[in-house]
Amino acid sequence: MQSLKPYIESFNNFLKSIMKGLPESTLYDPVRYIMNTPGKRIRPSLGMLGCELFGGSSDDALPVALAVEVFHNFTLVHDDIMDDADIRRGKESVHVKYGNSNAILSGDAMMILSYDILKNYQDKVFTPLVKVLTETGLGLCEGQQSDMNFEEMEYVSIEDYLIMIEKKTSILLGASLKMGSIVGGAGQEDQEHLYQFGKYIGIAFQIHDDMLDVFGDDQKVGKIRCGDIINNKKTYLYLKALELADADQKSTLLSYYSHAPSDPTEKINKVLSIFKSLVVEEYANQLKEAYLHLGKSHLQAVNGNENVKTLLMDLADYLIARDL
Amino acid sequence: MQSLKPYIESFNNFLKSIMKGLPESTLYDPVRYIMNTPGKRIRPSLGMLGCELFGGSSDDALPVALAVEVFHNFTLVHDDIMDDADIRRGKESVHVKYGNSNAILSGDAMMILSYDILKNYQDKVFTPLVKVLTETGLGLCEGQQSDMNFEEMEYVSIEDYLIMIEKKTSILLGASLKMGSIVGGAGQEDQEHLYQFGKYIGIAFQIHDDMLDVFGDDQKVGKIRCGDIINNKKTYLYLKALELADADQKSTLLSYYSHAPSDPTEKINKVLSIFKSLVVEEYANQLKEAYLHLGKSHLQAVNGNENVKTLLMDLADYLIARDL
Repeated sequence: MQSLKPYIESFNNFLKSIMKGLPESTLYDPVRYIMNTPGKRIRPSLGMLGCELFGGSSDDALPVALAVEVFHNFTLVHDDIMDDADIRRGKESVHVKYGNSNAILSGDAMMILSYDILKNYQDKVFTPLVKVLTETGLGLCEGQQSDMNFEEMEYVSIEDYLIMIEKKTSILLGASLKMGSIVGGAGQEDQEHLYQFGKYIGIAFQIHDDMLDVFGDDQKVGKIRCGDIINNKKTYLYLKALELADADQKSTLLSYYSHAPSDPTEKINKVLSIFKSLVVEEYANQLKEAYLHLGKSHLQAVNGNENVKTLLMDLADYLIARDL
Repeated sequence: MQSLKPYIESFNNFLKSIMKGLPESTLYDPVRYIMNTPGKRIRPSLGMLGCELFGGSSDDALPVALAVEVFHNFTLVHDDIMDDADIRRGKESVHVKYGNSNAILSGDAMMILSYDILKNYQDKVFTPLVKVLTETGLGLCEGQQSDMNFEEMEYVSIEDYLIMIEKKTSILLGASLKMGSIVGGAGQEDQEHLYQFGKYIGIAFQIHDDMLDVFGDDQKVGKIRCGDIINNKKTYLYLKALELADADQKSTLLSYYSHAPSDPTEKINKVLSIFKSLVVEEYANQLKEAYLHLGKSHLQAVNGNENVKTLLMDLADYLIARDL
């Protein structure tokens, strides 16, 4: 998104300076590696905008922006080990490049680094930042655990799925905004509205991500097309399809999702044709729009700079429209 | 140690109440499992005594005691995955019992929990506690990384080994005392002396641990006798032996430490006989005593309750004399 460019540039410069300051060692090489892969920098942007919304300079929130991005990337490093995912943003995952042990340990260091990065804020800002990061971190772990548990379960309700993605994805978006707003000096009520805005657009964003995997353009997504189908991931699309399926379709879906054939072509085609016949893409779109709308209503309620609010509205639209 | 009993009892009650408060879930079951294995509770004791030393009630430091113990156990959970260690305190390691993914994730949650446990302290205490925990945590990761790197190296200097164990083991003992002292209201200088006391007895403690592995009583150690020799661990004993060895002994040691035979009996016997002929146990003992002495001189310099100081002196002696 063009209007985010100056924020992301400022963030990348800050990132570079902090990464340079880390010792040359096998512990921090993987940290530099993943932090330099071209992420979308959504969380940093949210942190910086969350601060600017209340009259602070967006640069005041650079440590918040970096802390949430490092934290996010720590979860990617560890999740990729757990999910056995070899590719991340079109490049080798950390555990493939550096081995599992180094990936576990560097991930640990990244998590602790997130706290370290915040240390120069004054006490009255530092304390609430640490508390938001901590609460969010525990939520993320709970979300990842649910995600793993769902793999072992034949049926997962759409409600449970939405709670899982809220924890695994959305609350860190909410936290990024909230932490930025704390640096900017926002009151409790505004902090909370911003958090809710981030949370709801996060859910919309994840539903969109599920759709990207199935209907997206291969190259831009940077991972294997239909990876979720190949890996029997219980996404919204799959769960909605199961809900709408007739007996035949249901047994086809359950059977395909009970194993992983070495050549997944037939599986992908059959599942896609069921998805299409049940128009689950349309349902997903509707749900995504509903969450987007809910999120925006919270942003609307915030007492903040109107230009920045417009930018955040645009960012929300951008997040759920990219690359389809 | 008999005189620590009331502290440990109080700690265990607090631990129990906090563990009960965690949700019943696959994320927190491994946390309860490892936190309930019978650890020595050295770090909690240090935290509580560090507080009492300055006139605070030792119970005021219970959250510190729990935070450092949870943090310590998080490192054990992850280290056991990296080191492929199946047994911990005589029981299955977390990753053996719950699988690698759950062990990675529950370890992550434990690290974040350590921060969460501190949240009820007032800002002016909370802030320095978080900073000590964070700095220490990064040091622990660096120590574990060095330890793993040493596995790939043929020669490691004793100096580098001592830096490694300082980071991997000792600084958390120092941090436990320091964090307790912060709760107790200690001044900067006393905090620093206490930290140094903990650091030096930690180094002595680790040298003692190296000796326990080789010369200890199997049942009490709770892990396989001579596991360090079997796993080619470059402990102080091994590095000192290499330093003192003649050409023949050196090549024997290097050759035995270059692989891991399925039946290690001969290897153990040969290595032990070299250790004995070079009296490395004596050298280790001397070094251990030197660090103990250095640590105690820092404790002596602290302006605190003399009875508690005596208890800490006794604890230091106990730590490097147990179970040999």
